[in-house]
This record gives sequence, structure tokens and C-alpha cells, in this order.
Amino acid sequence: MSNASGVENVAILGLGLIGGSLARALRKSGFAKNIIGYGHRQPSLALGLELGVIDEYTLDLDEAIDRADIVVIATPTLIASELLKKILPTLAGRAHNPVITDVASVKGSLRDTAVEVLGHMPAQLVLAHPIAGSESSGVEASDADLFVAHRVILTPTEANSAQAVELIRAMWQSTGAEVLDMDVDEHDAVLAATSHLPHVLAYTLVDALAQSDASEDIFRFAAGGFRDFTRIASSDPVMWRDISIANKRALLATIDMYTEHLAGLREAIAADDAAGLLDIFARAKRARDEFSALLDARSQ
Amino acid sequence: MSNASGVENVAILGLGLIGGSLARALRKSGFAKNIIGYGHRQPSLALGLELGVIDEYTLDLDEAIDRADIVVIATPTLIASELLKKILPTLAGRAHNPVITDVASVKGSLRDTAVEVLGHMPAQLVLAHPIAGSESSGVEASDADLFVAHRVILTPTEANSAQAVELIRAMWQSTGAEVLDMDVDEHDAVLAATSHLPHVLAYTLVDALAQSDASEDIFRFAAGGFRDFTRIASSDPVMWRDISIANKRALLATIDMYTEHLAGLREAIAADDAAGLLDIFARAKRARDEFSALLDARSQ
Repeated sequence: MSNASGVENVAILGLGLIGGSLARALRKSGFAKNIIGYGHRQPSLALGLELGVIDEYTLDLDEAIDRADIVVIATPTLIASELLKKILPTLAGRAHNPVITDVASVKGSLRDTAVEVLGHMPAQLVLAHPIAGSESSGVEASDADLFVAHRVILTPTEANSAQAVELIRAMWQSTGAEVLDMDVDEHDAVLAATSHLPHVLAYTLVDALAQSDASEDIFRFAAGGFRDFTRIASSDPVMWRDISIANKRALLATIDMYTEHLAGLREAIAADDAAGLLDIFARAKRARDEFSALLDARSQ
Repeated sequence: MSNASGVENVAILGLGLIGGSLARALRKSGFAKNIIGYGHRQPSLALGLELGVIDEYTLDLDEAIDRADIVVIATPTLIASELLKKILPTLAGRAHNPVITDVASVKGSLRDTAVEVLGHMPAQLVLAHPIAGSESSGVEASDADLFVAHRVILTPTEANSAQAVELIRAMWQSTGAEVLDMDVDEHDAVLAATSHLPHVLAYTLVDALAQSDASEDIFRFAAGGFRDFTRIASSDPVMWRDISIANKRALLATIDMYTEHLAGLREAIAADDAAGLLDIFARAKRARDEFSALLDARSQ
């Protein structure tokens, strides 16, 4: 049913931007012969079919899983956890045993769910995180090239079968993504620092200013730098509520680390410590400029 | 020598991006017949002359002031303060009394300097802040249209002569800017919230991550949202050191306000308070979306 060059059936659970884009990419590359969409909202599945994103759809979870070689849970983090709770206990009883993967932003919470349900990580559950997105959402914004030159992080564990890991690697490579492996907890710590913490900081700033007495003036006089800085505070609140809860431990650690650094900078300002302030700002600018050069080099 | 439609001579002290762009704009609009550049670096003044930014230059501060109808201090905040200390005590002895203005990001520190030097705010010192900038710097990046449709905040005080205020208003209006008045302390509080605090937060994040053990991985896996969020941490460290010190009181107050809100969000995450988190994120998204619509409307 499956080999390195592709599979017959891929079931995508949740047909949003990421699920829809993966479906399009797998059809485009020929990795999957048939894409089955599953969800609980019939209209968006019908739209996916109409747009040529998927080949067929079902509202029946068991039916989707029964025929799939790969099951991709393409829902937000907390719903992914709920789906795992439904799916994992049924695997032993199935004639056909699919490889299961996901696209969620937090990996530790799904590992913990699996261990909670089964007592161990199953060999065929390969957790993954494509680092790609868009300001748009929904299947209508899906794009076969969304993952091209983007990173996909796999977080295999010792319990995984090598074959399952390589199948998910091949799937993502067929989309044009650069696939890397990382430890589950390391993934969650790195993502907490580079993505979850910045979102929390931006949401906090906008909310704090919006609640201030001078909020009208504040937003009236804010300019381009403020717009860039707060862009991520326009992200989906439900998604970020879920991520904050799912990655609680790593996120709290980065918030504490950040709060300590901010207190240090506050002290330097309070003490008129010009040399200390210049050190911090110059060091940060150097790191930011290096990061920017890295990102430019990567996009070429 | 001066009337609402323009003046003979404008002296620009400090020929960087802002000073150079103002010079170009005033030549373009015809508001000034002659622009005198002053600075302590001859090469950049010579370049300004060669590029047609200014009509003439001098390395002698007294000479620049003696012939000027308007003196624009177009240096960073702390140097502006130093220049005021030199200029203000000489005004009483001059045959010709120019209107003096500036472009610094902080206004209270310059008011305090004036009061410290003279015992009062002089009638002809009109503090101003054009909210415009660019990722480039230096006279070679100057642009006659830099201020078009941008805001310029005047912070007149009761000590100001109405004529002096209206002259500076007319000067900025001739550049295509939208000119508004604000109280000095209100200006500093609003700018602390919308500009100075975001810079401090972005510098802190990049520096904190750069110093972490996992910094290499962190920057390797950071993506577009992180780039937007940290763009302002690539700003000039010397300028931001100076602003942090000059606007110390207002900045410390906003840092404390921010730290309190961040602690509240941390509590919500620690307590798995899903409803509380959704409230904060949804409220912030709403405010950010409104701000974005406001900015779009303004740019049209």
C-alpha cells in the first residue's frame, strides 16, 4: 500500500489552511493517489471537493481512517488531542493500520495524550510540525506551494517504527519542504521562544494599551513600527488560547526568562546606566541583523 | 524676514535623514529661500551641498544661528539637549532672534533643559516631533517627501509666542505633514507607549534569546512572524539608549504597566484559565484590527 514514492490514500482530518494546502501539495506531487477529507462541517468539505483540494470526503471518522495509509490530524492543537483520544484506542482492532501524524504547533501535549491513552507512544504515531502559515485561513486559502522551502519538524521518539517516520518524512519532502528532526521537548522549547512568547508579548502590549485611559490617542499616534510589532496580535485568539495551554510548561519558562531580562533593562534605565543600555541594544541589534541575514540567505 | 508663506533662512543643525529630508522639503515647497547646514562633520555637510540638500554650510554654530529665521535642531535627543544648553544663553545678546525648534523623539527632557538653563521656557522655543523615519539613515537617504501625510506633533507651552508656534506649524505644513498640538508630558507618555516601549520589548526579546543556551536553534527555526516582531530591534542602539534615558519617567511607567499585564497573562496560563486567555487574546485582536483599519484609512 505504501512505499517511499507514495501511498494510495491519505486522510486529512480538518480541512483548513494547513490541511487543505497539504492535500493540494500531495495531489500535485503525486505522493497520494487519493485524498479523503474528514471534518464535522459538511460545507467546508464540499467546498474542498468543489475546489479540487480533495478527491472525496466523509463525515464518518472511522470510514476515513479505515481506508487511509496515512492519517493527518490537521486541526488546532487541543482538537488534535481530542481526536487522538478517539483514534488511538481503536487502532488495535483495525485490520488496516495507518501511520498517524499531525500538524500542531505543540508536540509534548500530543505525546502526553498518547501515553495517557495507551500507556506508551504507539509505533505508528509520528508527530510533526510544518512551520508555515498565512494571514488567511480556511480551505479557500489553501495553496499547493505553501510548504515549499519551509521547515517541517518531525519529533520522532524511540517508540516509533523507522518505516513510519520515513513515510512521513517522504510525504513532507514531496511538498517541497525541508524536513528536520528534533526532540519533542526541544521542539516545544524552541517554538515557545520563537513563536509562542512573541505572540504572548504582542497580545499583552495591544491589550494593555487598549485598556489604558489614553488608548484613543495611543492608537492615533502609533505608526509603522508599532504595526509590524503588533501584527501577530491579529492572529486567531482560539488557536493561541489552545497553544498557550498546550505548551504551558515551556511557555511559562520563557515568560519568566523574559520578565527577568525586562526587569534588568528596567533597572538600567532607572539607573541612567548609559553603557549598560548601549550594551544590551547593540548586542540585540547584532543578533537581529544576523538573524535577518540568515533568513534572507535561506529564502534565496 | 518671516511670514506665514515662508522665511529667508533656515539653519538645520545636524544633517542626517530627518534634517536632510526637512531641508529638501523646505526647498521643494519654497518655504525657505536659503538653507544653511550646520554640523561638526564637514564631509556630510559637503555631501549635503553636493546633493543639493542645502544651499550652504558652516561649521560655526554662531554663524548658522545669526543669519537664521528658524533654527531646527535635527540631532538625536541627547545632543539636542547639549545644543540647547549652548544656544539658549546666547539668545538675549543677539541682534536677530530666531525661532528655535527641534525634531527629537522626547519633548520633556528638552523643556527641562530650557528651564534649567534659563529658569523658564523661552517664547521662541517651539518643540516639535515629526513621526517619520526610515530604515535608512544619513543625508544620502534624505527625501523631500518623507513627511508627506505623516504626523508632526507640536508641543507648545504657555510661554510660547503664538507667532513662533504658527511659524513652525506653517513650516511643517509646507512639507505635506499633518500638524497636531499636544501637551509635552502627554506626548512623552503616548510615545513611550506606542514607540519606546515596543522598542524596549523587542530589544529585550532578541537579547534574551541570543543569550540563551539554545540560541542557535532558536534563530534557526524562527520565521516570518518573529522577523516582523523583532524588526525594530535592528534600530540604532545609540539613538535608543538616548531616548530611553531622555524619556525615563514615562518609559518606566509603561514598562511597569506592561510587566503587570504580562504577569496577569502568565497567571491565566498557569491556571489553565481558558476563558480568561480567550478574553485577553480576543480583546487584543479586536483592538489590533481596529488600529490596522485606522492606519489603512489614514494612508489612503
